[in-house]
Amino acid sequence: MTNWQASGVITITTDFGHKGPFAAVMKGVILSRFRAATVVDLAHDIPAHWPPEAGFWISRSYQYFPPGTVHVAIVDPGVGTEREIIIASRDGHIFMAPDNGLLAPLLEDADQVCKLNNDALQDIGIESPSLTFHGRDIFAPIAAEFAAGRIGLGDVGIDISDWTPGWLEEPEVANGSVHGIVVTVDAFGNLISNIDKSLIKDFEQPIVSLAGHKLEMKSTYGRARPGDYLALVNSFGVVEIARAEGSAADGLGSDRGAPIVITDNTNLV
Amino acid sequence: MTNWQASGVITITTDFGHKGPFAAVMKGVILSRFRAATVVDLAHDIPAHWPPEAGFWISRSYQYFPPGTVHVAIVDPGVGTEREIIIASRDGHIFMAPDNGLLAPLLEDADQVCKLNNDALQDIGIESPSLTFHGRDIFAPIAAEFAAGRIGLGDVGIDISDWTPGWLEEPEVANGSVHGIVVTVDAFGNLISNIDKSLIKDFEQPIVSLAGHKLEMKSTYGRARPGDYLALVNSFGVVEIARAEGSAADGLGSDRGAPIVITDNTNLV
Amino acid sequence: MTNWQASGVITITTDFGHKGPFAAVMKGVILSRFRAATVVDLAHDIPAHWPPEAGFWISRSYQYFPPGTVHVAIVDPGVGTEREIIIASRDGHIFMAPDNGLLAPLLEDADQVCKLNNDALQDIGIESPSLTFHGRDIFAPIAAEFAAGRIGLGDVGIDISDWTPGWLEEPEVANGSVHGIVVTVDAFGNLISNIDKSLIKDFEQPIVSLAGHKLEMKSTYGRARPGDYLALVNSFGVVEIARAEGSAADGLGSDRGAPIVITDNTNLV
Repeated sequence: MTNWQASGVITITTDFGHKGPFAAVMKGVILSRFRAATVVDLAHDIPAHWPPEAGFWISRSYQYFPPGTVHVAIVDPGVGTEREIIIASRDGHIFMAPDNGLLAPLLEDADQVCKLNNDALQDIGIESPSLTFHGRDIFAPIAAEFAAGRIGLGDVGIDISDWTPGWLEEPEVANGSVHGIVVTVDAFGNLISNIDKSLIKDFEQPIVSLAGHKLEMKSTYGRARPGDYLALVNSFGVVEIARAEGSAADGLGSDRGAPIVITDNTNLV
Repeated sequence: MTNWQASGVITITTDFGHKGPFAAVMKGVILSRFRAATVVDLAHDIPAHWPPEAGFWISRSYQYFPPGTVHVAIVDPGVGTEREIIIASRDGHIFMAPDNGLLAPLLEDADQVCKLNNDALQDIGIESPSLTFHGRDIFAPIAAEFAAGRIGLGDVGIDISDWTPGWLEEPEVANGSVHGIVVTVDAFGNLISNIDKSLIKDFEQPIVSLAGHKLEMKSTYGRARPGDYLALVNSFGVVEIARAEGSAADGLGSDRGAPIVITDNTNLV
Repeated sequence: MTNWQASGVITITTDFGHKGPFAAVMKGVILSRFRAATVVDLAHDIPAHWPPEAGFWISRSYQYFPPGTVHVAIVDPGVGTEREIIIASRDGHIFMAPDNGLLAPLLEDADQVCKLNNDALQDIGIESPSLTFHGRDIFAPIAAEFAAGRIGLGDVGIDISDWTPGWLEEPEVANGSVHGIVVTVDAFGNLISNIDKSLIKDFEQPIVSLAGHKLEMKSTYGRARPGDYLALVNSFGVVEIARAEGSAADGLGSDRGAPIVITDNTNLV
């Protein structure tokens, strides 16, 4: 990997929740190798068996971090089995995750995609990692070496052109409508879809359908009356269903995985 | 703003909860502009529609941070509407929040109070902020510039003398008693009021009334028997109702917003 | 304390939960004294009246941090009473906690165990600490001084050889079986015991009994079918009961405090 300019920043995304020292010991391992690292918790509430949410948030968030940042994702039900570890680079950032589809949204346009070369572990002082906590024993030390600028992708990765595909179909426009899915629900109960705003940019009057409701798009939360549902392009560039001063998830009885369709109303007339 | 001596420290207080990457991308934006920043999460559990809790905690906490710290608060149901952004300085700290009453407890005695000059945004490289996430797109980059010591209040603020008032009446002594309110409940179920200890310093035998209970003041938690309720001046200098080895909130069925009255018992005799 | 080589890293373990600014103001105090400190939240979800969980996690986690790290634990129902504060050193790390049994698993093999010398507080600028928040007013400033390398144990501690014992009996092998206890439950519902793997290293066919279930040991989570219970030595070196793609705690109706017994099946034949 040429031109790897490390920022010294590492983000961590996991399904660990906020109980116990699991993220903390990863930080300890990182600081033990590279004292000047800055570690940012991206999210620790990814559902254990829903890796797409981790990939979604990382793909929508990484560009807000300094180029040269290392993004580590640990949603890893297959830890200790034969699954590979993916290491990829894109736009000057490095991404690491188990090869379980988590990183799929990022890999298609990555600059380089590798699998971890297990034979390289010993060279960077990783000996006898546990079978159940690769986040601490493999991901953290490698991320520290990347963040310190001491290694590049080629030092620990083997180029691959094939990986576990993502769990969600990528939305596409067909017959004037787009079919997507609710990827995650935030703390306010907003239902966040995987439909990028670029897909509806030619729609003159987009109508969002979810759970039997049809909603016009608005530009911001503040323009609806309390209790009203509204659809908008959110600050991460995807379509979201919100409820003014309330929870859309509770009100509509919808959760991650719910189908969402956007149709251009002018096509219907 | 003369004599702005930045510490490089930024605190963040929000209603984001602990789900998703919302606070994290603010940190990413800060680190992208000022790699040496140290960002401290003050609290992320402020109820979305109860900004007074954010202002209360910031006003009671800022003095524990180094002078030169920037305190950012995002409880912002009006984001994207015409609401202003307040930037103020006090005791060598800078405070930023939407103009929705959140900062009111701090502004009365501030050294300088400004509203954000939107015309200055472009000068510091803020272009086309989203309509729904000013925390990331406006607050974070400005906080980073303050924390780096590259700008002062005058560079992005316009002096004002008028702002949205606080949501809660400030408690005052009248006829030997003080009327206040429960501002927040901590993780132990302690009910924390907005009544400063200075208001009861002349009370010889203060009796605290809440939800039909009358309690004498104690000096510390450890001096009550398990299950007992007790009132004390807590470590943030305000009156608090606790329950020894239990939750006062659960036991008394009280929550934020509950009225609390302190009377000097010697006056009653 | 000779040869104290501070890393500048401080970990914090508390029962504060994730509400309010309690951990944040400790960080503010630390940064006010030592701007270059890196503070890592180890865990904030320790049950208020179950200090053993804090001691367990610290004793199993500290070695992943750089030597020279200061580990502060605040689970302190007796704050403000006559309880002492323990400061100990071991393997080049410093540990601080109330003397309530919390640190017991670490003290037996510590290099030095002290109680805080209250007469030394003034020398390092600690005046009139609150009676209810020693974490902020005593632990944080002392931890900052340690982390900055400005003081050693001898400057604030008085050697002691006697302290509050731990709450849990240390498991031992007797008659071919080991009796332990569930110390904590992680976010996945895994039941984590205090039985170290060394105790069962000579067992040929260890059988774990909990809540009427008998389980063979496996090497990793991935080797069980969804819904299956499994016992394994986890990545912290202790025996854990998990449920593949589920919560063992919910499924077995077990929680912290539950007894767990491991027997060598070959002894039974």
